[in-house]
Amino acid sequence: MNFSSKLLENAVSEFGRLPGVGQKTALRLVLHLLKQSDAEVLRFTSAINHLKEEIQYCRICFNISDFQECEICTSSKRDHSIICVVEDTRDVMAIENTNSYQGSYHVLGGLISPMDGVGPSDLKIDGLVERMRKQDIKEVILALSATMEGDTTIFYLYRKLKEFNVQVTTIARGIAFGGELEYVDELTLGRSIATRTLYERPTL
Amino acid sequence: MNFSSKLLENAVSEFGRLPGVGQKTALRLVLHLLKQSDAEVLRFTSAINHLKEEIQYCRICFNISDFQECEICTSSKRDHSIICVVEDTRDVMAIENTNSYQGSYHVLGGLISPMDGVGPSDLKIDGLVERMRKQDIKEVILALSATMEGDTTIFYLYRKLKEFNVQVTTIARGIAFGGELEYVDELTLGRSIATRTLYERPTL
Repeated sequence: MNFSSKLLENAVSEFGRLPGVGQKTALRLVLHLLKQSDAEVLRFTSAINHLKEEIQYCRICFNISDFQECEICTSSKRDHSIICVVEDTRDVMAIENTNSYQGSYHVLGGLISPMDGVGPSDLKIDGLVERMRKQDIKEVILALSATMEGDTTIFYLYRKLKEFNVQVTTIARGIAFGGELEYVDELTLGRSIATRTLYERPTL
Repeated sequence: MNFSSKLLENAVSEFGRLPGVGQKTALRLVLHLLKQSDAEVLRFTSAINHLKEEIQYCRICFNISDFQECEICTSSKRDHSIICVVEDTRDVMAIENTNSYQGSYHVLGGLISPMDGVGPSDLKIDGLVERMRKQDIKEVILALSATMEGDTTIFYLYRKLKEFNVQVTTIARGIAFGGELEYVDELTLGRSIATRTLYERPTL
């Protein structure tokens, strides 16, 4: 692109580094910011700077937190004998949004992926094992993606957790609610038949 | 969304204000920035801050510029007797990318749009009229969008420019190169027949 201004070009190139943001989108976003008041632009940039400078990771579950220990880990209303292991903070938010889980979490910070050079030592697995030793944990739910990397990580964690007297579960896999059978892929459909559950008549 | 951190929530809400960026995208972008080094995040935010603080608008053509007068207006290689009137800086960039225009520009900063409350006084029309008085202008090309707002603005500018001894042209409208006839809308097709041009045999 032919920029009339070096300042503009810099800002667009910085925006263009963000995932899924191309040059044209970057330019649109930068020109939008240019139209805003100084105060609004400053609020935008300082929100990012503050986040980067002051953010902490909970020393128990490694979730993003404003404090040394996150709200969930310090809450007396949560069941700390259950740990739900997830890939990142987005998964915590997704599960929290369901309002159907009252235990605690453990954020790995990624999944084992030899292709991307991510090994077990890059993840917060030691922290999880330490929690098993220190706390009285009854169940570990492995809520990881149904991908190759997710399965590899589940297998690795399962072997790590075997030595502890703890129930290791994974979240159910199958066809989604509202999903039409004909559009479900063969693997999911095959697995959901193999792991079929007993029908429970709804109590009316 | 259930944020585990106020800092995170702030940054996501600021990103979510950008046009076309929803909550989920905003979260993805913010988490991406969080994974970058401190230096990279600072480079991102300061590029925006610098842009906002130091950007200027060329006092001749009102294009975004790093200086009081932009590179095009001060260039001795450009033909300053032709002015191409455009809506915003993106149009300047688009026309510059064609490498087929050697005149100067005038950036209106918008189009007349009564629906959005944008009147002639909100645009840099006075600046254009002033250039007509001061400079020796031969031609004004109105390169505005083929929309209702564009047409309104063209009509308004045409009446403003009538008093000067200047040729007023608009960019050609018709079917795009590579466009298939059957997909062209009726209005464009009808107009492109009405304003048909004499066929010039390519010189081989």
